Amino acid sequence: MTKIIIIGSGNVAQQLIRAFAKNTATELIQVYSRQKNIPSSLLDPTKVINDYSLLLKADLYIIAVSDDAIPTVSAQLPFKNRLVVHTSGSVALGALDDKNRKGVFYPLQTFSKDKLVDFKTIPICLESENATDFQLLEKAAKSISAKVFAINSEQRKALHVAAVFVNNFVNHLYEIGNTICYENKIPFEILKPLILETAQKIMTLSPQEAQTGPAKRNDSKTIEAHELFLSDENQSTIYKILTQSIQNNGKKL
Amino acid sequence: MTKIIIIGSGNVAQQLIRAFAKNTATELIQVYSRQKNIPSSLLDPTKVINDYSLLLKADLYIIAVSDDAIPTVSAQLPFKNRLVVHTSGSVALGALDDKNRKGVFYPLQTFSKDKLVDFKTIPICLESENATDFQLLEKAAKSISAKVFAINSEQRKALHVAAVFVNNFVNHLYEIGNTICYENKIPFEILKPLILETAQKIMTLSPQEAQTGPAKRNDSKTIEAHELFLSDENQSTIYKILTQSIQNNGKKL
Repeated sequence: MTKIIIIGSGNVAQQLIRAFAKNTATELIQVYSRQKNIPSSLLDPTKVINDYSLLLKADLYIIAVSDDAIPTVSAQLPFKNRLVVHTSGSVALGALDDKNRKGVFYPLQTFSKDKLVDFKTIPICLESENATDFQLLEKAAKSISAKVFAINSEQRKALHVAAVFVNNFVNHLYEIGNTICYENKIPFEILKPLILETAQKIMTLSPQEAQTGPAKRNDSKTIEAHELFLSDENQSTIYKILTQSIQNNGKKL
Repeated sequence: MTKIIIIGSGNVAQQLIRAFAKNTATELIQVYSRQKNIPSSLLDPTKVINDYSLLLKADLYIIAVSDDAIPTVSAQLPFKNRLVVHTSGSVALGALDDKNRKGVFYPLQTFSKDKLVDFKTIPICLESENATDFQLLEKAAKSISAKVFAINSEQRKALHVAAVFVNNFVNHLYEIGNTICYENKIPFEILKPLILETAQKIMTLSPQEAQTGPAKRNDSKTIEAHELFLSDENQSTIYKILTQSIQNNGKKL
């Protein structure tokens, strides 16, 4: 059975620990956590260490730490020629220390401490230096997720940028919607079904097919009224730029 | 029982016809459709007319036509002192002709011909000139939806702008994500679970609590790398402006 060790205790690490701890196809033999803050409900505390010298021999070491810490942590590992992967969307394979075999195990999802996710539905993007390591990664990934993809470092960079657009930026537009509601004494609740349907719509339609609204139909009267309504300069700038971008897309087709 | 007539045959009209046709608390007695293009599966064809002079007496006339057509259609109705409402998010109550009692019956959702929606979950925003009409509207709205709100014309204008941000603009960001994937030979499928989770997250967290990403954590290294990656000028502009907006929000708190 594939023996796995996870290094880290942040959001991604905890979700991976949760997924691998209950997994019967692999064995989570150890977790390195500097503060040893892994709930005992999640993992037998005797398996949690905070000293690199105590690391056991495993088939796969998953470094789930902040992007900046990946080079340092991978350099501190007291062994060589083993398979070591990181979990970051924005760090290249080459950031890992040369003494071990490198790989990437990137679960593409937004993780919050307070919200459990079903790992089965989370795409995992894999990369490795050779085919044997890729097979091992693929087996481990498929044991916790139904969606596993081979994504190289260049593609992963693109994917991370795309994820910023559809996650971080989308959430910021939710926040602007929330602010407009609040300032006009409208419960934000009213917008929630629309927000859900907007996301659900593109599960079956392409975003291009799903596009509606005044910008799409070149309804300049409504656009002008909206621009007049928006007194906040920042909101107004965002409105103008996204409206133009929708209109230019239309022209390109 | 409240007798209802719907005027129009576009997306909103058809969804309303579907909701009211199977509703036992109200009676859909007639539909005006210029092209008489209402599927017989939806409504008994003898109830579909395309001549205003054939309009029966009803308690409530719902004009579900394009924004621009609302004043004309409401002026053409061959009766007075009855309750006439429109279904638009961006048109004021006053756009309706003065000869009848005015109101608004605005279902806040994105409607596509190809995708059925469950009306029960759709917020309906109501406005009327007097309390008696409001009660009638409220009863009709509650018979098809569990979410009914009193929203005046000023608030509705704000709500419509907010809806553009969380629906039209959000969908456009999905489209940019899709484009970036396509150009880098990445299946857009990979982003779909993230898109759904981003929407679902704010059902329990506020958008402010849910915000993550390089802009939120002032990760200038990642932001610079993303800006370098984006060769499309339009995408790059949107990236910069939304990143700045997230960072400025952080400063305000």
